[in-house]
This record gives sequence, structure tokens and C-alpha cells, in this order.
Amino acid sequence: MRIRIKDGLYLTMDEQNLYASGDLLIEDDRIIQVGGQAPEDWQADETISGKGKLFMPGLVNTHGHTPMSLLRGYADDLALQVWLEDHMWPMEAKYTEQDVRYGSLLSIVEMIKGGTTTFVDMYDHTEVIAAAVEESGMRAVLTRGVIGLCSKEEQQAKLQHAVNFAKEWHGKADGRITTMLSPHAPYTCPPDYIEQFVEASRDLNLPIHTHMSETIKEVEQNVKDYGARPVEHLLKLGVFDRPCLLAHAVHLTDEEISILAEYDVRVSHNPGSNLKLASGIARVPELLRAGVKVSLGTDSSASNNNLDMFEEIRLAALLHKGVTYDPTVVPALTALRMGTIAGAESIWLDEVGLLKPGCKADIIAIDIDQPHMIPHTDLVSHIVYSASQHDVTDVWVDGRQLLKNRALTTLDEEQIRWEAARCFERLNG
Amino acid sequence: MRIRIKDGLYLTMDEQNLYASGDLLIEDDRIIQVGGQAPEDWQADETISGKGKLFMPGLVNTHGHTPMSLLRGYADDLALQVWLEDHMWPMEAKYTEQDVRYGSLLSIVEMIKGGTTTFVDMYDHTEVIAAAVEESGMRAVLTRGVIGLCSKEEQQAKLQHAVNFAKEWHGKADGRITTMLSPHAPYTCPPDYIEQFVEASRDLNLPIHTHMSETIKEVEQNVKDYGARPVEHLLKLGVFDRPCLLAHAVHLTDEEISILAEYDVRVSHNPGSNLKLASGIARVPELLRAGVKVSLGTDSSASNNNLDMFEEIRLAALLHKGVTYDPTVVPALTALRMGTIAGAESIWLDEVGLLKPGCKADIIAIDIDQPHMIPHTDLVSHIVYSASQHDVTDVWVDGRQLLKNRALTTLDEEQIRWEAARCFERLNG
Repeated sequence: MRIRIKDGLYLTMDEQNLYASGDLLIEDDRIIQVGGQAPEDWQADETISGKGKLFMPGLVNTHGHTPMSLLRGYADDLALQVWLEDHMWPMEAKYTEQDVRYGSLLSIVEMIKGGTTTFVDMYDHTEVIAAAVEESGMRAVLTRGVIGLCSKEEQQAKLQHAVNFAKEWHGKADGRITTMLSPHAPYTCPPDYIEQFVEASRDLNLPIHTHMSETIKEVEQNVKDYGARPVEHLLKLGVFDRPCLLAHAVHLTDEEISILAEYDVRVSHNPGSNLKLASGIARVPELLRAGVKVSLGTDSSASNNNLDMFEEIRLAALLHKGVTYDPTVVPALTALRMGTIAGAESIWLDEVGLLKPGCKADIIAIDIDQPHMIPHTDLVSHIVYSASQHDVTDVWVDGRQLLKNRALTTLDEEQIRWEAARCFERLNG
Repeated sequence: MRIRIKDGLYLTMDEQNLYASGDLLIEDDRIIQVGGQAPEDWQADETISGKGKLFMPGLVNTHGHTPMSLLRGYADDLALQVWLEDHMWPMEAKYTEQDVRYGSLLSIVEMIKGGTTTFVDMYDHTEVIAAAVEESGMRAVLTRGVIGLCSKEEQQAKLQHAVNFAKEWHGKADGRITTMLSPHAPYTCPPDYIEQFVEASRDLNLPIHTHMSETIKEVEQNVKDYGARPVEHLLKLGVFDRPCLLAHAVHLTDEEISILAEYDVRVSHNPGSNLKLASGIARVPELLRAGVKVSLGTDSSASNNNLDMFEEIRLAALLHKGVTYDPTVVPALTALRMGTIAGAESIWLDEVGLLKPGCKADIIAIDIDQPHMIPHTDLVSHIVYSASQHDVTDVWVDGRQLLKNRALTTLDEEQIRWEAARCFERLNG
């Protein structure tokens, strides 16, 4: 299948050639040319007009829990532990596979429509989520999140499930699905149990993804329980000897930042969720200065409460300026990198997150002929400071069009919205 | 003209009856019934289906500079004074009436489409802006912002213009336009000049609107120049003896907050702009606790960079949680009040900002059958934490429909976008 986008403007995220214009050519799952003219003998199966659109790499959401969309707005304005233990966990304990399926599909629908082409998901019933990803055409990095506050037998069963899932689904759906291993957090997994995940991660040659230092309370508890802050604790357990992606990492000392940089640990910054749960504001300028790879995640729509990655990009660009009184920290392009190419690199995907010949054709189109995008002074600025998920008109993943003029091609949006609403009614009944 | 909305769901913002459902009836410019059934003998000229929509009061944007939309994205990631003095002011000095017209129309188009029905505007060439407001059908509180760093003669000419404009346009456009008087800021207007505005405000019986304590630098300079922080300074000059709306008020001491509460001074919180210009984060929880009326403003789209009031509402709800580590500060409903009823009260409009019989029919409709609004757990939560300007489908101001199924009825959007783009090209040429 050969697709030609004609007369388009491309924000490539390749800093050597940030913009290009003219033709973009796709052959099967890959971009083969960005900008200029198609070779004379090159025949497209489909030609698409690029007029009035800005094309850019699809957004990469590096932390979330898609099935939790069923709990959007179910409990707000509460502290993390109360919200989690008294509201989220009791409802999630009631989840059936049907709930996981429609919760994750509802999130996938929102993400595709909003220009996210790759997402990380940590949850249970991961086979159900993987099937939804496969069906949808999206790209995802999936991991069975494991809470180890249970008997040894249960722990072993959960670890085994996590390992089996990771082994079975890694590379599936034409390579669109990859996997990781996830002890949920240092405060929900005993040390020896975390070590078993490290070992499994080595055996399977897969990365580790875990929550860390989201709240002050959790850091203090870690010091109390294990005599060390979470970074030192995970370091001792060997977690950072493995490729590792941390979600949140809000509360860090200078020394902890140095350790993360030294071990090339990646951080998924979740500004919206951290604000909403009053967890605090991560030290992103310091992390970036230390050379830590920082990407962006929405977290679940129960703590966000949408999956609009443009909002996370904007928050990443705005928030740290306001807190540091320095308008030059996290410039627009840096924030946009966090939502695209740095996101891809953070999850060990080296062929997405930019528009370049040879890369996977994960591309989104933005309608820039709208009042909030006029005048066309600086389109990076507009994407970061003015755009939203609703500006996305078209989405391709692996060269396949998943959104066409704002309509989904692989999923039945109306049916999914209906089923998701019914699932919540049953859970809440 | 009689309009009946049928089978609607209404978020009234009247805390005694936050929700209503059934019919909403409009007669000319006013709401005459919210919820229940229309009287049997009541004949509508137009009946509108409310299915799948949430109707709520139009949003109230209490601080901005509409013509600056032409400079959206022109200069970002700079400190306020550099941004203002080296980038904005030189460009604005070149503004013709044509630029003011299309800059303000571009903002008006964005605001109507985004569900804002009333806005405050402080700028020059205010007659041109007033004409645009009149034409558009929106409601606005307009004020000629005056910078007094000039000769006495120029000062007098500017003051005279401000007074003439305020006198002439107050109550115009069927009462949709009201006016205020605006010395730009304590750091741009000498004390005796500010006193002349106080006098004029008394003579005309109109409120004062000014910028105050946006940056730390400006507060320090005020102490240096006048031996007092801005609140004490303006208090001494008699500004707070008049009805007064302050924009920003980011840097306040406890004592200053008490004074603002005592004198019933209203504050327009501009979280997006304050973050972007690295001005800091206003002490909104303390202001609210002290009983100060706090509303929300976008500021101009040169420092925001859009005019999406849903974003400001969301930032107001999120930001202060993250900074204080308290998830209960600025709950969703409080933030929504700031963007609606408290906004209206802050600018002395007592007939807008809520859906209630007798109020002006300033109403917006939100499409709640979208993935990011499902399930319908808590619609206040969804509006605050998930919605955006792009979810607005219909807008009425003074009973007249300005947006119908996302299309403008009074303005030519395409022509305005085109003219605004040309204006910027000329300014930048």
C-alpha cells in the first residue's frame, strides 16, 4: 500500500530539518520520503491533500491505565491514597473482563481521536487490553501491573501471569505491541518480590516499568520501612541495572536525580494527574538538565480526567515556568519533544516519534485553519500553547489510517461509548 | 422571540438547584423557565432538541486584550517585561484600526465558538472593539487601558479618550456593552494620574480595572518608587474606594489579602498567562478563604496562547492542589463558579452567569456524548477536568443564537481568519 500526502506541511521533530513541505510518501508501514516531490515513477494507491493541515508524528503517552476510563469523574478532589484505596480499588475489584475491554476501548477511542498513536498501559487482564489494541490498530507497550500485598502463592501466580503475558505478546500485532514487567510500586511490592521482577526482566530481556515517588508520604514511608528513599531502594534491588521507566518521580533529591541520570532511567512526567491528586510538581527542569530522558503520560482518566496529550505537553511547558519564575525552562519545542520523540525513546521504540524516511508511519494531521491557530506565526508554539486533542483530523499508525476526517476506521465509537456507560452502571449498581 | 429547548439537561450554577431537566424557555433576551414542562398555552417560535447536550451559563472571561490575538505565537518563553517592552509594545505601536478590528474579531470568533459569552477587554482604539462586539452579538465590558508614561498633555488626551469612550458606550448595544476606567498598572501610571482615574470613576459611577502585582519585580519596584507594596499604594490613592477589578494579583501578603477582602476588591485570576510568563502562581485558596471574589481571565492570546476558558477553569482547579499538596482546595464546582457566576458578579453584571428565570439568556450547549465525557458520572467534574472549548456546539447571548451547531451566525469566520492573517503579515513586514 502506497500513500502520498500532497502539498502538506510537516513538523518532523527531526531537529536538523524541523519543517518540511511538499509530498510525504508512505510505503506499507513506513515513511519513505518527507517533503519535496515524489519520484516521477512513484505511483500512489491513495493520494491525500495536505492543504490547511500540519502533519506531525503521533503523540506518545508513556503512562496510563486505560480501563480506568470507566471511573472518570467517579471520585475527585481527594488525596491519592484515599482516592486509590477507598474509591478506585474497591470499584476495580469488581471489574470483569467486559469492563476491562470497554474501559480500554473507550480510552483507545479517545486517544486515537486525540492524536496519540502509542501508549503505555499498566493494568490487569492485559490479554483483554492487548486484544483491544490489536483490533484498534494502535501501537502500545503493555504490562501487567502487579501489587504484591498478598500471600506468597498469590504473588507467584501474579508474577507468572505477568511473565506469561510479556512473553506471549511481545512483538505481536505486526510488532505494534511490545511488553514490559511491572511491580506496581515500592510501597505495594515487598523488596524480595521486586527482585523477582528484576530477574524475570533479565530472563526475558524486557524493561521494567513502575510507579515511584508520586507522593511525599510514600517517600517517607519508604524511608521508614526500608531505611532508604525510593531511588536508593530500587537501585539496591537491581531495578536500575535493567532498562527502566519510572512513572511520576515527583519527589527527588539532587542525589536521586544524579542516580537516575547515571543509570539512564527514564521518567514519565504526569503533570495533570500529579496536580489533580495534589501529589506535587516534579523537578522536570533539573531532570532535563541532568540529562534524564523525560516523557509525558496522562495517567488514567480517573485522575486527569481526559487523555489529551496536548494538555500534558502544554502543562509541561507552562507549569515549570510558573514554579521557577523562569520563562525559559522547558521551552515549547522541548515540551513537544517530550510528547513525541523523547516519548518513543523512553519506551525503547526507535522507529517512531519523528517523521523521517525509514521510520514507522505513525502520523497525525492537525487542522491549523482554526481561529486559535491564526496567525501562523510559529506552529510549534501553536501546537504546544494552543492546540488540543480536538484539532486532530487524521491519524495513521504503521501506515494504516485509523482516523479519517475525525471518524474512526477500525472501531465503532458509538457502540463503545454505549457499552462503557453500561459497564459503569453495572459497577456502580 | 420565544425559544424552547426541549428534553435538555441544565447545569444552572444556582447552587440551590444545580441541575434541572426538561424544558428551558427563552422570551426575547431572558430566561423565563428552567426545567419542567412548558405551560400548555406557551407557543415557541423555535424549538430546539436538547438531547445529548448539557446546557449551562456562558463563560465569563474577566481579563483580556482581544486585539493581541494577532501576536499569538509571535514571542514566547520570555520574561514579562522583555516580552512586553521588546516584543509586544513595538508591534502594537504599529497597530492600525484595521489591525485592532481583525485582532478583536479573531478573538471574538474564538470566544463564541469556545462558549465564552461575556468578556472584559482592556485596550486602545476601544471604539473599534465596541463596534466589533456590537456586530458580533456578544456581551462585553470594555475599557480603554491607559499607560501614563508620557507628557502631561498626552496623559490628558488619553484620560479624556478613556472617559469619553466609557461615557458614550456604557449601556450600548441593547445593554450588552458596559464600560470601566483603566489606568494600565501602578508601574505604568504615576500616582497623581491614577488619582484622576479615581475621580473620573466617581464622576461617571463606573468601576476601575487595572493590572496589579503580576510579577515580583513590579512589586519590588513599587516599594522602591513609592515606599509601599501595590495594594497599600492603590488603597492610598483611593482606587479601592471605587468598585475595582484587579487583574493578576499574583504576589500578595496576608495583609494585602485582608485589605482586598475588606474593600470588596475583585480579582481576575489568569493562571495560564501567569504560568507562561513565569510570573508565579496566585494565592487563590487564601483569596477565596478571605472572601475575595475571584474570577478567571485568559489574558491575551499572545500570553496564553488561546482563549479557552475551560482551560483556565481547569488550571484554577488543578494548579493550587499541586502547589499546596491539598486536593480539596478549589474543588471542581468552585472553579466552575469562578468561570461563570463569580465572573459575572466580579464585573457587576447581576443578570448573567447562571440559568434562572429572569436572567439574561446567555447560554451554551456542550456535547456530552463524546469519549472524554463518558461515563456520565459527574458532569461538573467532566466540564472542569475534561472539557474544552471545542465541546461547545451552540451559544446564545441575550436570547440570540450566535453559534448554531458549531457555526457562527453573526460573523464570517473564514473572512476574519484571512484578514487577521494578512494583518499580521503587514505588521511583521
